[in-house]
Amino acid sequence: MEREYASALLENAVTELSRLPGIGRKTALRLALHLLRRDEEESVALGESIIRMRREVTYCRCCHNISESELCQVCADERRDHTTVCVVENVKDVICFERTGQFNGVYHVLGGLISPLDGIGPEQLEIDSLVDRVAEGGVKEIILALSATMEGDTTNFYIYRRMGTLPVKITQLARGVSVGNEIEYTDEITLGRSLLNRTDFAVG
Amino acid sequence: MEREYASALLENAVTELSRLPGIGRKTALRLALHLLRRDEEESVALGESIIRMRREVTYCRCCHNISESELCQVCADERRDHTTVCVVENVKDVICFERTGQFNGVYHVLGGLISPLDGIGPEQLEIDSLVDRVAEGGVKEIILALSATMEGDTTNFYIYRRMGTLPVKITQLARGVSVGNEIEYTDEITLGRSLLNRTDFAVG
Repeated sequence: MEREYASALLENAVTELSRLPGIGRKTALRLALHLLRRDEEESVALGESIIRMRREVTYCRCCHNISESELCQVCADERRDHTTVCVVENVKDVICFERTGQFNGVYHVLGGLISPLDGIGPEQLEIDSLVDRVAEGGVKEIILALSATMEGDTTNFYIYRRMGTLPVKITQLARGVSVGNEIEYTDEITLGRSLLNRTDFAVG
Repeated sequence: MEREYASALLENAVTELSRLPGIGRKTALRLALHLLRRDEEESVALGESIIRMRREVTYCRCCHNISESELCQVCADERRDHTTVCVVENVKDVICFERTGQFNGVYHVLGGLISPLDGIGPEQLEIDSLVDRVAEGGVKEIILALSATMEGDTTNFYIYRRMGTLPVKITQLARGVSVGNEIEYTDEITLGRSLLNRTDFAVG
């Protein structure tokens, strides 16, 4: 047998698909055969959407979120509050916060968290650019909105130190019982924090 | 919020990816962000491999397997035995049989199985073309190599009836205990068949 799949083109597509995270050769073959069965137009549209996205999507020079122009749509929006900067780990987190509909400020995407075990140091993240952004003035508050993990806490602390004497308020997300979670199944550290940080009871 | 993903190009790629079987919007977003992070060359290669495959892969006019020319590489190979035709459900099954390295005949891909529940009748499958192929002469044996399911059995029986008085030997795959399986965990129907169809004991 010269080729595994009777067609070098199929073989090639399977190889490329199997490079995607979480997709092995079996799934890749299933996807490729599906793409072969489907209307030519639809399969070509998938291919073209990937190529266009990769070629044309760029990163915002201010907040490092993905963008289609030099400034992303959040940074370019004058109705948003440019004095409040929400510091997030990655592009996906921006999507999460935007979905809440509760935030009218702007973002700063670090591109990861400090993680010595994975060899990621602060110099690989957009921390220098955050310090510069604050040093330029105009930012009144930065909200540290990183994951409640060891790496998140380390990164929070590093950023706090780097801000030094810059005249900026530094806040972080509230830690507490998740909405919809039962007390019984909430871990004790979270419960402890939610007691310490209790808020006035408000109706509605 | 005007768009969910800050970029219409990202949004478009996520939509196209989520049309793939087994890939929801969350996974599609993960894949799209991965494609954005990766080298431009690699992501473009994936897109192009999908487009080329869909545009250039065609189906063999004889056996209906995928092919890059009018005749697939199996049908075009003169060293193969063109008098023995293995009837399979789909393109994937051809790959499975080729992997065994035990078959030197040719194939006939039905494109599915008869399944009234799913609205698939014999006229939607390549059964007429199989009958024509046998009627033309030159085929000595057809091996029914369909799944051991209700649909497979129905399709087997229908093909058997359609062959009528055509001078062709009709065989089917042996049913029995899977190699590596324990008797204890083999179902009774399979065990019964494997008793009835027992073969002479041969060493090696």
